[in-house]
Amino acid sequence: MKKLILGGGILTLSSLLLFGCPKKEQVQSGAGVEDAARKVYVPPGQYDEFYAFVSGGFSGQLTVYGLPSGRLLKIIPVFSQFPENGYGYSEETKPMLMTSWGFVPWDDSHHPELSQTNGVPDGRWVFINANNTPRIARISLDTFETEEIIEIPNAGGNHASSFTTENTEYITASTRFSVPISQKDVPIASYAENFKGTISFIKVDPKEGHMSLAFQLLVPGYNYDLAHCGKGPSHDWCFFTSYNTEQAHTLLEINASKNDKDYIAAVNWKKLEQCVAEGKGKDFPAEYYHNIYDHTKHMAKSEVLKSVKMLTPQDCPGSIYYLPTPKSPHGVDVDPTGEYIIGGGKLATVLPIHSFSKMLKAIENKQFEKEVDGIPVIKYEAVNYCEVPKPCLGPLHTEFDGKGYAYTSCFVSSEVIKTDYKACKVVDRIPVYYSIGHLMIPGGDSAKPWGKYLLAMNKITKDRYLPTGPELNQSAQLIDISGDKMKMLLDFPTIGEPHYAQGIAADLVKNRSLKIYDLKTNAHPEAVKSEADAKVVRKGPNEVHVYLTMIRSHFSPDNIEGVKVGDKVYFHITNLEQDWDIPHGFAILGNNNAELLVKPGQTQTLVWEPKKPGVYPFYCTDFCSALHQEMQGYVRVSPAGTNPEIKYSTGK
Amino acid sequence: MKKLILGGGILTLSSLLLFGCPKKEQVQSGAGVEDAARKVYVPPGQYDEFYAFVSGGFSGQLTVYGLPSGRLLKIIPVFSQFPENGYGYSEETKPMLMTSWGFVPWDDSHHPELSQTNGVPDGRWVFINANNTPRIARISLDTFETEEIIEIPNAGGNHASSFTTENTEYITASTRFSVPISQKDVPIASYAENFKGTISFIKVDPKEGHMSLAFQLLVPGYNYDLAHCGKGPSHDWCFFTSYNTEQAHTLLEINASKNDKDYIAAVNWKKLEQCVAEGKGKDFPAEYYHNIYDHTKHMAKSEVLKSVKMLTPQDCPGSIYYLPTPKSPHGVDVDPTGEYIIGGGKLATVLPIHSFSKMLKAIENKQFEKEVDGIPVIKYEAVNYCEVPKPCLGPLHTEFDGKGYAYTSCFVSSEVIKTDYKACKVVDRIPVYYSIGHLMIPGGDSAKPWGKYLLAMNKITKDRYLPTGPELNQSAQLIDISGDKMKMLLDFPTIGEPHYAQGIAADLVKNRSLKIYDLKTNAHPEAVKSEADAKVVRKGPNEVHVYLTMIRSHFSPDNIEGVKVGDKVYFHITNLEQDWDIPHGFAILGNNNAELLVKPGQTQTLVWEPKKPGVYPFYCTDFCSALHQEMQGYVRVSPAGTNPEIKYSTGK
Repeated sequence: MKKLILGGGILTLSSLLLFGCPKKEQVQSGAGVEDAARKVYVPPGQYDEFYAFVSGGFSGQLTVYGLPSGRLLKIIPVFSQFPENGYGYSEETKPMLMTSWGFVPWDDSHHPELSQTNGVPDGRWVFINANNTPRIARISLDTFETEEIIEIPNAGGNHASSFTTENTEYITASTRFSVPISQKDVPIASYAENFKGTISFIKVDPKEGHMSLAFQLLVPGYNYDLAHCGKGPSHDWCFFTSYNTEQAHTLLEINASKNDKDYIAAVNWKKLEQCVAEGKGKDFPAEYYHNIYDHTKHMAKSEVLKSVKMLTPQDCPGSIYYLPTPKSPHGVDVDPTGEYIIGGGKLATVLPIHSFSKMLKAIENKQFEKEVDGIPVIKYEAVNYCEVPKPCLGPLHTEFDGKGYAYTSCFVSSEVIKTDYKACKVVDRIPVYYSIGHLMIPGGDSAKPWGKYLLAMNKITKDRYLPTGPELNQSAQLIDISGDKMKMLLDFPTIGEPHYAQGIAADLVKNRSLKIYDLKTNAHPEAVKSEADAKVVRKGPNEVHVYLTMIRSHFSPDNIEGVKVGDKVYFHITNLEQDWDIPHGFAILGNNNAELLVKPGQTQTLVWEPKKPGVYPFYCTDFCSALHQEMQGYVRVSPAGTNPEIKYSTGK
Repeated sequence: MKKLILGGGILTLSSLLLFGCPKKEQVQSGAGVEDAARKVYVPPGQYDEFYAFVSGGFSGQLTVYGLPSGRLLKIIPVFSQFPENGYGYSEETKPMLMTSWGFVPWDDSHHPELSQTNGVPDGRWVFINANNTPRIARISLDTFETEEIIEIPNAGGNHASSFTTENTEYITASTRFSVPISQKDVPIASYAENFKGTISFIKVDPKEGHMSLAFQLLVPGYNYDLAHCGKGPSHDWCFFTSYNTEQAHTLLEINASKNDKDYIAAVNWKKLEQCVAEGKGKDFPAEYYHNIYDHTKHMAKSEVLKSVKMLTPQDCPGSIYYLPTPKSPHGVDVDPTGEYIIGGGKLATVLPIHSFSKMLKAIENKQFEKEVDGIPVIKYEAVNYCEVPKPCLGPLHTEFDGKGYAYTSCFVSSEVIKTDYKACKVVDRIPVYYSIGHLMIPGGDSAKPWGKYLLAMNKITKDRYLPTGPELNQSAQLIDISGDKMKMLLDFPTIGEPHYAQGIAADLVKNRSLKIYDLKTNAHPEAVKSEADAKVVRKGPNEVHVYLTMIRSHFSPDNIEGVKVGDKVYFHITNLEQDWDIPHGFAILGNNNAELLVKPGQTQTLVWEPKKPGVYPFYCTDFCSALHQEMQGYVRVSPAGTNPEIKYSTGK
């Protein structure tokens, strides 16, 4: 049995594989059940109190839940194809999934982050990172659609992302997997020599939210894991955990678990900004896509960028320091005041709390233990405020209630602990089922948490719900944190992996939510705004464009002839409705494509390549009225090599 | 204003477009709220009482909910690609989505149907139809995975599907959109002459569930909509609604809404079986795919079939009769005794109830009003038991509680009505929000309903939940039907379109649910069953096969060299775990593919075509242990045209 010797104790490898076993239920019977039932029940037609934006993890999407009910309000497609509404299949949305590697239909979405103003979620946007093929997306909370995706070059695995600075000046990104930067064909065993990490800052336009890659900082080849930026006094700084300071490239579960301490990188983005302004760093080769969806044109456009400003620590002294932190730290969480920085060391037996003011003093006094690749390593004692003793096994991530308490998830011991962090002691703990990863308190990483509920996001489900074969949904639990003692309220299964989440009071979002797209301002070049303008046009020998309209409950035109095998048929479809919640869908038999779901006032395009002569039905896929079932049409397809005349009608 | 003159009243077109407006809430405050809260609350760790299998509609999938909590237990990918677990992207699952039109990544899944024994759901399989590219799928309730998909040839839109006979002898399919059969290049205006429908019977192997297309019946070119098969005395019969007996091919919302009555087709499948056995009908050209997933080999295989037995009504006298039914009927629902057949006429102002015994007598006495294409049309009065007066506006679909009551959804008036159907009178009604399509009582279309809850599946959502931009999830409502009066309990949003559903007592399913796949019996030809057998092999100049294993928390091998640009790399990945709920995921940077989610004991294959030289990380995408974050590896890619030596290791 391999033993991992830790600062304050010993964890065996086997204990790290154990998951919590079924225990007595928290909510048992009688008054406790009645109370929990009442607290999570949202009567029909009434609204939840909070929006929760939960990452889909390996689903690649962002899911929206209502709290306290735990009801799934929407899945927002972000990084993965979504056959349900044509995202990643329609001509307008395919550019959203373009990367320097070509079209990528999937990713692993990890950390949603709400935009903030003065350190408080403002309800404008949600950002979320793609870990596998490094990217950051921005989702609009007016439309609840993905509006922008920017690729992060010079990175392998974008994990410490997408965390925001206090006024959404920047969003962070960082390499989980170090790689040769720039990429080159080198032996994997040359890791220590050739592999590097980068920490990236993505500038956010304060008005439109548009993202641009401002600069990258080249850092040692560790695995950068999570991040949070400062607030108040620590406004200028962001903090990034790292593990694998051993620089192992194989069997990391053993080889990257050797050092007693790894590092939190404290990065001064203001200083980096200033260095760049002074012309420091260099233009570094890169190739990365930047995709923007325009809600007036109803289409996405990609641009390819070829260079990025790259700095080394030596280019900008004072921009980065390492804070030693036990052991393979995962979360790094800054309290609402901006002074306390809690590291969750997944192999640590204590919960270390660093002090921002101590850090500044240590820097001033040069209390460094050494330097790594030009990065000063601050002495542990000089930055550490305290170590919370005996917290739990596998502490990962901490959020705050704004009342002086921190709540930390503990993976190995499957529990949440409540800490009076200034007093440096655990004051309450509650078991969770099973193997919690992250947790979320609405606003719990901001300057003003809404400290009423806590959402535990659990990695293992096992026997929590009616079984569904070998593949089980993962799961979340809602905990009442309004009193002294935490109370378990509700279990609910989730979409994909509920990796990380953000919550916000409903009032800050619900009034900005758009109901329809304005048909008058629809600027899609292929839009038709009345049935009179609907038409079918042949363009060249093998391309037919159908300008189709939809309104309850018919298509115009609905009888189309003149298409032949070998044609590429573009259906440009405009939904003429201007009523709330009246989308129409479109599908045609045998199409090697998904459907389109076209929202009121919107235009979208589906391409069809008919394969055999015949007459093919198309229809509305979204129940739109009592005569929805009658909303259909036909396309006649003539054999290849013929020259059929284009004809179309609505039969009126 | 166009008016539709109906048998018993007048509906204006505009009334068909109206949706229910916000009304006073059903559950208001005090005791009512407490009672509803308690009834739907399932305390953490406890199980729901029923499984509900709800179609995803335009999502193409099948969703599994627990009732009464309304919690989403799982999305089962069926007809659409599912990036979350690699369904439709992995080599093993891509054949599942093959059709005679090539690979089709999406469909519109409508009517899940549980397998039955003696007219009662038996918990073995769920069938579900694809409407757009006609198919039927079978999902195993051991694995909760799609095991089989059969294409339905000679069909345009497979809507009256997938309904079962009393002992799952057959599953039905029928054309919603009539088309030329066989397909040919003819004018759309020749609809009446050239367009036909088919009614298909798919034989189900009683042991393995394997499907085969037994025979098709060529019927007039109407739109066939829904179906249900008989039970008890009506065991040999299935019933199919049709609309568009006007045979309109354009602007159906007007042109197919003219006749006062359309038809329910009563089809004697026993008679058809006998005619086929006697050599009636002919072998008709067809091309259709039949895809089977083998849970031992962990892969799907497709076969292409080229012929089907086709009968006309004239080939098999006595096999089909038309029952006139007002007006554009949608649902056709047989009560638990098998005697009463309720038609939901979406433009009708009465709810017609037909009598099976009257039908037999009418056939015996030849009480026919005419014949259509060889199909006798029974006189309405000779088959009708009664017309329930003043039911509601837009009655669509009826299910039963087993206590003598029928519950019918009413789209236009947004309500559910409860009918004492033998007494032919409405005894209760409750508003639903908004625009209900189908409804479901667990077992409610079977011989023994569990008449405790009713699920209303609503098409319009509007203001029911916190808003999520122009695209809103659709919605379901849970109603308590255990007492005299229906009581509204719960609203919850759904995935895709909650088009139709089936429910079953949890006990009949939960004990058969598989926890892991047995590694020992894994018969995948590329499986490796121990780390010692893991290897990397070059096959030919441009193909590399990686035989990879996964176990907490590392890959073997995890350092791979010898791949070059231009290679096609097959990752054959076996999850060596034999513990419940320990899947591992796999992804590699820049891959133009989804991830793999590999269940314990399973092998799956992902293909990667590296594009640029460099060293690329791969990792486990599903949080599997405290050292999950360390579960990663690298592949070195050399330039095209080089000849790098294959090397691999786990670094041990």
